[in-house]
Amino acid sequence: MTNPVLIEVLRGAIVESAHRGAVAVFDADGKPVLEIGDTSRPVFPRSAVKAIQALPLVESGAADAYGFGNRELALACASHSGEPAHVELARSMLARAGLDGSALECGAHWPSSHDATIALARAGGSPNALHNNCSGKHSGFLCTCVHSGIEPQGYVRADHALQEMVRDAMQAVTGARHGADERATDGCSIPTYAVPLRSFALGFARMVTGRGFAPGRARAAKRLLSACMAEPFFVAGTGRADLALMQAAPGRIFAKGGAEGVHCAALPELGLGIALKCDDGAGRAAESMVAAIIARLLRADEVLAAKLLEMANAPIESRIGATVGALRPTAALA
Amino acid sequence: MTNPVLIEVLRGAIVESAHRGAVAVFDADGKPVLEIGDTSRPVFPRSAVKAIQALPLVESGAADAYGFGNRELALACASHSGEPAHVELARSMLARAGLDGSALECGAHWPSSHDATIALARAGGSPNALHNNCSGKHSGFLCTCVHSGIEPQGYVRADHALQEMVRDAMQAVTGARHGADERATDGCSIPTYAVPLRSFALGFARMVTGRGFAPGRARAAKRLLSACMAEPFFVAGTGRADLALMQAAPGRIFAKGGAEGVHCAALPELGLGIALKCDDGAGRAAESMVAAIIARLLRADEVLAAKLLEMANAPIESRIGATVGALRPTAALA
Repeated sequence: MTNPVLIEVLRGAIVESAHRGAVAVFDADGKPVLEIGDTSRPVFPRSAVKAIQALPLVESGAADAYGFGNRELALACASHSGEPAHVELARSMLARAGLDGSALECGAHWPSSHDATIALARAGGSPNALHNNCSGKHSGFLCTCVHSGIEPQGYVRADHALQEMVRDAMQAVTGARHGADERATDGCSIPTYAVPLRSFALGFARMVTGRGFAPGRARAAKRLLSACMAEPFFVAGTGRADLALMQAAPGRIFAKGGAEGVHCAALPELGLGIALKCDDGAGRAAESMVAAIIARLLRADEVLAAKLLEMANAPIESRIGATVGALRPTAALA
Repeated sequence: MTNPVLIEVLRGAIVESAHRGAVAVFDADGKPVLEIGDTSRPVFPRSAVKAIQALPLVESGAADAYGFGNRELALACASHSGEPAHVELARSMLARAGLDGSALECGAHWPSSHDATIALARAGGSPNALHNNCSGKHSGFLCTCVHSGIEPQGYVRADHALQEMVRDAMQAVTGARHGADERATDGCSIPTYAVPLRSFALGFARMVTGRGFAPGRARAAKRLLSACMAEPFFVAGTGRADLALMQAAPGRIFAKGGAEGVHCAALPELGLGIALKCDDGAGRAAESMVAAIIARLLRADEVLAAKLLEMANAPIESRIGATVGALRPTAALA
């Protein structure tokens, strides 16, 4: 099955590039509300499922033991931009567990934020693992280990007790098998498992409603998504799509992108989970797709829907800042 | 027509993303040697045709008047990385015509090279138009204006005499109409025209053979492509695909990428021109495609073909430098 073109990239009046993809929207009972393209093909969710991967941090009691509030929980679910506030918060999370950045096994990279990269370079600095966009998630992993009495070293390995806790949560929430055959390695060295897109949509419908979960898990899931919606800067960073989406309607939209064009989202008022992937892995297209789909689902709020569609039709600018093109969702999304 | 998948992106053993595209390989008589996908659909060539756009610089006599050698001509055809040697050479080209960076209308951006960006920031610097990856092309445009007695100001506008010279060259070389209906604006503010991919393949076959050109144009075209092949660092920059391709077989491969997944190339020994576009605009895929296609066309040289296929199967690394995946050309390319 060839997925449909969901986003066109216009230069002037001509379509310059096009992005295909698939979209799944499910309720918490497993009922498909909307499916576009092949939603049964296995997809690596990458960073789009960090909120599910953070369940052990809350369920183990580590988050409470270390006094984590919304910001720390948001950062544990984040692909942050490596801005100073992100880096400092990750450092403070580790400090609560008696650790520092040297415990992180995610690797270092320059901040995702170009401005933060320039500022760091101008200050004579170099990036370390705290600047890694995944350092909040990894700090949450390490805090879970220390609180639970698990030796932290090697916590990124698939056979480490921490990753088994994470995999158990992923399997339970999505209902999909996460076996060795589905496994590869994410950019931050932890395992990632390719399962059907629709499983992630169902998973986020469960996360946002708590339906089908034991009470403790339901509370943990709502707490994590609420934390992200309350502190979206700590999930993303200045100028980022997930920040803009969650700021557009505070408390009504949860959204989290991942590498290679994956996006997951949840809408509390409708009890729906959303998962989508751009076939070619383009983040620009996934961001446009998720904004367009949320606009469609929340169209009863015309002001919000218009704002979301404006995001979906993001302009393309020349180097002097003139608008020379735009992204455009196709009829298949509308 | 749906173009075939030409590049798969593997994570572990699983296909994570996929890139579709079209490829045209033509000889200078207009005979298609190889066509994959829809090569008649109009495509903006973006920076992949800078060598054709540089013809007026040579044909006007400006290049000789200002004493330009291979490096300057290569930079006029370049999307350079903004490394110090690129910036200095662009500055010196403008100085020969009595101009400086303030005459450039391409806009400023931080160097494409991450290392060059960090070095510039560490030195307390900020980018100007000389760092723009197109500053060599624009310097060539300005030198052409000054030498030809054309008022330089506004040289990026479609109705400026310089852009009319460039358009005339593009139309003559490709044989395709470049009208207002095909026009949009490139990232560096000059017009770009969407014409069939096969026209660019034919154009580069003509450029590399001179067939069908008057003697002056044939000399100018060969001089430009030879300059790029002799000084490929000045066409691209450290670690870039076009540098690696042209270094792999000095004098035997001309290659030049453009934004949104376009790549053009020419093979002197076979007298062939190549033009391809990745449908979704991904540079990683276009680079893999062009390496795979050249490997196929030059397969008689087994050592070279193996080297090119290694480039086409580029590894994907985690943040700690472990190989976690790779690009893989599909059977449609092989």
